[in-house]
Amino acid sequence: MSRPGTTPGPLSLNTATVREQWSLAQCIEGCARHGIRGISPWRDKLAEYGTANAARHIREARLTVTGLCRGGMFPAADAAGRRAAIEDNKRAIDDAAALNAQCLVLVVGGMPQGSKDLAGARQQVQDGIAAVLEHARAAKVPLAIEPLHPIYAADRACVNTLAQALDICDALGSKAGDGHLGVAVDVYHVWWDPDLARQIARAGSRVLAFHICDWLVPTSDLLLDRGMMGDGVIDIPAIRGMVEDAGYRGFCEVEIMSANNWWRRDPDEVLRTCIERHRSVV
Amino acid sequence: MSRPGTTPGPLSLNTATVREQWSLAQCIEGCARHGIRGISPWRDKLAEYGTANAARHIREARLTVTGLCRGGMFPAADAAGRRAAIEDNKRAIDDAAALNAQCLVLVVGGMPQGSKDLAGARQQVQDGIAAVLEHARAAKVPLAIEPLHPIYAADRACVNTLAQALDICDALGSKAGDGHLGVAVDVYHVWWDPDLARQIARAGSRVLAFHICDWLVPTSDLLLDRGMMGDGVIDIPAIRGMVEDAGYRGFCEVEIMSANNWWRRDPDEVLRTCIERHRSVV
Repeated sequence: MSRPGTTPGPLSLNTATVREQWSLAQCIEGCARHGIRGISPWRDKLAEYGTANAARHIREARLTVTGLCRGGMFPAADAAGRRAAIEDNKRAIDDAAALNAQCLVLVVGGMPQGSKDLAGARQQVQDGIAAVLEHARAAKVPLAIEPLHPIYAADRACVNTLAQALDICDALGSKAGDGHLGVAVDVYHVWWDPDLARQIARAGSRVLAFHICDWLVPTSDLLLDRGMMGDGVIDIPAIRGMVEDAGYRGFCEVEIMSANNWWRRDPDEVLRTCIERHRSVV
Repeated sequence: MSRPGTTPGPLSLNTATVREQWSLAQCIEGCARHGIRGISPWRDKLAEYGTANAARHIREARLTVTGLCRGGMFPAADAAGRRAAIEDNKRAIDDAAALNAQCLVLVVGGMPQGSKDLAGARQQVQDGIAAVLEHARAAKVPLAIEPLHPIYAADRACVNTLAQALDICDALGSKAGDGHLGVAVDVYHVWWDPDLARQIARAGSRVLAFHICDWLVPTSDLLLDRGMMGDGVIDIPAIRGMVEDAGYRGFCEVEIMSANNWWRRDPDEVLRTCIERHRSVV
């Protein structure tokens, strides 16, 4: 299943992959120890460590921060909630800037509790991104809208296809190449999309991040049963080919949320497996 | 959340809704007893009862058969498997004709075990439908491709959006209005689709069935935790409005697979609840 004649971009560790085992400091050390050159922290771990400490440690370890997870979560039941979300996103942008992150990943949020207004939530997302775009531009932090699998439309992210994410980019005036607003392509969320190849080509240089894991059959949990690359049904090299054809030359960021398997293993074994699979099946 | 000034089409009972409690004969009697005028049997229940017996019983009860569930499952690992699927679909078409069903619902199938070739499975689906279309036309049984939620792309149905289903209809030469090939719109599978309104309008008279239930938050099981209309987050009247604007004037078929709730209740209570919710939230 590998892509003949090409090697994938370098590996990055999204810290969600070992979140139950390691602190951010341990993740940084683990990456350094295993020769992994990129890292993508989550904000809870970052807050625990302190942004300045984390930035210094990551710099000393010479890691590239391929993204900060995550901004977004824009929709709210009232104006105060929406304002709070915007302020929180500005703080996330500042953190991403302090880490010199290649992007801030936006998991945009679902419908407010009790709402059935999906279109309204989607409009709130677009308005929320519009409200922080100038802050991001000034901080030189590209925003990467991550479309999430439609299974999460209600409660985590109401942006569910690349087409929809790119429509938002277009509506907010992002031109291919300006670099301030784009998308994160996570194979878990997009692999099923009949329109995938066309939309990745449309994204072009707006592909700001490429996330890898696998879709297991059967999947036992809607959120926390993601698979190691190669253990599922996703043709990862095919999707890698699409993002590379679109011009992407960045890292392959492994992000596996796996409550009953990888989160229970020795994290050094997890990293070794990521490295091995990155070589053999990505 | 109701649609002002309109009433939904009549209710039909998809027998999956009470599959753990009732035989097909009991479903037919239950519909008659509760004044439900439509029914949509599954083939396992039909085989149990016998097609001729079922057809006579349904006729005597003056029920409309809004669909037969299900044909499809076309992809297979080898040619013999694909031929077997085609033969099985022809038998399903014959059963649908014997029941005077308004359509045969196609749950098209996922990837053969061990395969990662989603595009190949999709091609097998299109080829499979093409191979049975003439049989269906001769039997006067419309085929309704049911796009399933992307969560089922791997193992149940690799047709996951209305756009994709309609592309197949177009490729097989179905024109709006000829009635032999169209789509089943199930709110559970399509509610999240950013392109929903446009694709339903595109479908026009090719909307052959309209299925209702609800998406629960949280959802505890990928397959068997569907909700009663009104208990979830789907704006059902909005989607009903779309299919009606497209010209649909048929039944609202309730199909709820619910291992831990509705399958454990008194089936008469289930039917009463369906009737009440059909009036109040559809």
